[in-house]
Amino acid sequence: MTRSITIFDTTLRDGTQGEGISLSADDKLKIAVKLDELGVHYIEGGNPGSNGKDIEFFRRVRELGLTAKITAFGSTRRKGGSADTDENLQRIAESGAQAATLVGKSWDFHVHTALQTTLEENLAMIDDSIRYLKRRGLEVIFDAEHFFDGCKHNPDYARSVLKTADEAGADWLVLCDTNGGTLPQEIGSLVAALVAEMPQARFGIHTHNDCELAVANSLSAVAAGALQVQGTINGYGERCGNANLCSVIPNLQLKFGFHCLPDDKLAHLSSTARYVSEIANVHMPAGQPYVGSAAFAHKGGIHVSAILRDSRTYEHIAPELVGNKQRVLVSELAGQSNLVSKAQELGIELDPKSPQAADTIGRIKDLEHRGYQFEGADASLELLLREAGGEVRELFVFESFKMLVEKSAGKPVVSEAFVKLRVGGESLYTAGEGNGPVNALDNALRKALLQYYPQLTDMHLSDYKVRVLDDQEATASKVRVLIESRDAANAWSTVGVSGNVIEASWEALVDSMRYALLGQEPAAAAAAAEPRPGLLNH
Amino acid sequence: MTRSITIFDTTLRDGTQGEGISLSADDKLKIAVKLDELGVHYIEGGNPGSNGKDIEFFRRVRELGLTAKITAFGSTRRKGGSADTDENLQRIAESGAQAATLVGKSWDFHVHTALQTTLEENLAMIDDSIRYLKRRGLEVIFDAEHFFDGCKHNPDYARSVLKTADEAGADWLVLCDTNGGTLPQEIGSLVAALVAEMPQARFGIHTHNDCELAVANSLSAVAAGALQVQGTINGYGERCGNANLCSVIPNLQLKFGFHCLPDDKLAHLSSTARYVSEIANVHMPAGQPYVGSAAFAHKGGIHVSAILRDSRTYEHIAPELVGNKQRVLVSELAGQSNLVSKAQELGIELDPKSPQAADTIGRIKDLEHRGYQFEGADASLELLLREAGGEVRELFVFESFKMLVEKSAGKPVVSEAFVKLRVGGESLYTAGEGNGPVNALDNALRKALLQYYPQLTDMHLSDYKVRVLDDQEATASKVRVLIESRDAANAWSTVGVSGNVIEASWEALVDSMRYALLGQEPAAAAAAAEPRPGLLNH
Repeated sequence: MTRSITIFDTTLRDGTQGEGISLSADDKLKIAVKLDELGVHYIEGGNPGSNGKDIEFFRRVRELGLTAKITAFGSTRRKGGSADTDENLQRIAESGAQAATLVGKSWDFHVHTALQTTLEENLAMIDDSIRYLKRRGLEVIFDAEHFFDGCKHNPDYARSVLKTADEAGADWLVLCDTNGGTLPQEIGSLVAALVAEMPQARFGIHTHNDCELAVANSLSAVAAGALQVQGTINGYGERCGNANLCSVIPNLQLKFGFHCLPDDKLAHLSSTARYVSEIANVHMPAGQPYVGSAAFAHKGGIHVSAILRDSRTYEHIAPELVGNKQRVLVSELAGQSNLVSKAQELGIELDPKSPQAADTIGRIKDLEHRGYQFEGADASLELLLREAGGEVRELFVFESFKMLVEKSAGKPVVSEAFVKLRVGGESLYTAGEGNGPVNALDNALRKALLQYYPQLTDMHLSDYKVRVLDDQEATASKVRVLIESRDAANAWSTVGVSGNVIEASWEALVDSMRYALLGQEPAAAAAAAEPRPGLLNH
Repeated sequence: MTRSITIFDTTLRDGTQGEGISLSADDKLKIAVKLDELGVHYIEGGNPGSNGKDIEFFRRVRELGLTAKITAFGSTRRKGGSADTDENLQRIAESGAQAATLVGKSWDFHVHTALQTTLEENLAMIDDSIRYLKRRGLEVIFDAEHFFDGCKHNPDYARSVLKTADEAGADWLVLCDTNGGTLPQEIGSLVAALVAEMPQARFGIHTHNDCELAVANSLSAVAAGALQVQGTINGYGERCGNANLCSVIPNLQLKFGFHCLPDDKLAHLSSTARYVSEIANVHMPAGQPYVGSAAFAHKGGIHVSAILRDSRTYEHIAPELVGNKQRVLVSELAGQSNLVSKAQELGIELDPKSPQAADTIGRIKDLEHRGYQFEGADASLELLLREAGGEVRELFVFESFKMLVEKSAGKPVVSEAFVKLRVGGESLYTAGEGNGPVNALDNALRKALLQYYPQLTDMHLSDYKVRVLDDQEATASKVRVLIESRDAANAWSTVGVSGNVIEASWEALVDSMRYALLGQEPAAAAAAAEPRPGLLNH
């Protein structure tokens, strides 16, 4: 019998409690779209009572029409107050979210020490708050904070908290190991007992990774009867993080045989993990289980020769099931078939047996080896594939750029750029100023190209990310720049890599304009097809 | 009754199979000394049959007179050969190690596919090899490769492998989850069954982290009766790594109450983990359980105010038990209580009710509002707090910098920087080149300051991060730069924010040097205390 397990993602709320993780409202919306594509059931967007950024998120996410339920987080009403006049609860009710995640205390020590109120008042706070949110029409997910610690100290009180929430109408009772100190067998036996005691309730589990057991603890709860798992992509979260959904989901689905994500969605897992790490600008460990770049990489010589005979010798699952791939230095067959299928997807003819295909594949592999990453730069990859088919026209012949940043005490910083290039036989030398070096380069390059390609006025750069690739001697190492551009209809991303952040930015900038002008004719004299400029060639 | 669990460290052997991990013989010796100080029982040094570096390690480690037993790794003899003439086994016997870790196949599929021999010959290879090593006077630890996968496919054969090894005289039978695909309950029930079937044998457990369950699997085996755990510091190892001893040990000792390390050694755990990550030159995740810099870091305001009342509210153990410490992260999510406790942590007197404190808090809040983030920039925050106490001397008076990046077709990109400043009344104008703009600025600034502060030669930039703060009109928006610097003993992080990435980098760079020189006197003429330069003031 296949049990269905509900996946509750809190990357956008509890995940942002992680050190160094800070997401704008735009970032959150992008991640929400990706989570929805992955097929999670709930997306917790934030705490509308705590800041304006989250209110903006809830307002804008409604317009996206996602399938997942959006949930807003908040605490029980203030002690001694009333739920009806509690501002935080009102903000949840007014956020437009379909569900509320209400956190309440279940450890008597916390009621006394943190809330500084009585055990009875805490129960009243839980009861009032849930009834209020239910009256306002929301589904209520009750997060029993510190439930397992509470059970160790005062099991009767911890249980009375769950019973209060259940009687007040909570739709889910989620047991939280807030401090992350509980062991799998403790969780398993408590959950099994509760499921027997309260057969009418639906239980969820929320764990933290302080003992490196968050995933095991989630699995243990589900095996004992929990029906919902709360966690985050890549395990982001306070201290050591939350349960990592990128490990929880494939374990539940592939190892236990439970049903979590819609069919065929599991293969989106690796790309989702990488996308979220790019947006959060957090380095993803190569060895991250299931989705890391080294999760199916083989280094040992004996391992590699066995893998070539049969990959099951050293792989616990087929990497494609989670959208990852095997990496063996000798065999790159998987890479090639990926590229061919990507080309097909774009309507580019690329015969996998042609020397052209081999050439392009070799070139892309070489670029990846040098630090390019096309996962987050679809437009650069598409340009490379279209070049293989001879489809890409060069916009200009690059001659030089100069970039000057100058700062004097008491004066604002000044950025200027000078670009020299040829378009259709004509030499152009333009200068631009900007708020920063990339803005100055963008302005100088546009000034040159706009007379030939007036369409460029419609596009602008919408995001800019820099990643250092090797943290040895950082200022002398390579950087990868990702640029996102937009026009009225589309968004596209390009990549540049160099030891110099300005040169890497220039590469990504040029690619961004080349992509915007794919298939377009110059407005003035026709530009002759010339060797490819700036990008990837110097 | 307190059971004693034997800790077997294979950082120097299986750990080096991890991607990007490469240790010289010197590195290995340094780590061995540190592991011995921590009190592990076995240190597996490498494979003397595979390379000369490991032979050198075994020769030199004997001279160190360590308490831990040193063990050498190798496979069973070649098929169809004899143990007496097997070169790899001879090298183990001659290595001088007190113990041998002998790996043998226990999954029939592997015997056929990888070894390409018969099930009987595999048993003979195991029997011969163990008897040979025992005759040569070594303790023998038998690693049954793929034991759990073997049990799923051919349980009788997997058990016959263990019985063969036991009868040949193996001192330990170690059950390996080589592919990392087994679940805790599967491991627990198999180990319990084996302990009942073979009460005379001592069992060990060796797990991999492909399902993010290596720690849970190790604990499950020990709870079922295993007496030895094999793992690595920080969980280094092939693919997703081995069981992380930095989590296994405190879980066994603090949660289960088993005895692992000698008394008072557990407090060396965090420094050992950091030392090994430095030697291996692998970035240690801030959120690593128990030993990471964020493992006891608190960000949310409600959490922080509760922590200040009683740290047990949000900490599962006292961080000092594993040699770690509590850290309060300052962020917009938190309030005044965070800053006051941060100041306390640094030994800075900051009366929360003083106008100075209100001033500093106001200033930090303003900076955060403008995009500064101090949770990843402890050194910049410490400078601000020490400034409030009048403790910080300015290094120089800033006059100007210029930064030029130039690229011509077919030539490498060139970065130059020019810095004008005054130190102690003297005007300085210096120029520097670099691999990139920040490197050039760093070189020009150093050139000016080194004559006054020769200590700066000891520090270098070790990491550089850039984040765009507002992704509307990206090239015209603000960027935040985080710089990490190091000298022989310490690492510290600083922050800069500006619309211009070069200016933001300059700010972080200047702060990094100011922090390095806290409390230091200039070597030449004393620099007068002057208004604060570049950083945060323009």
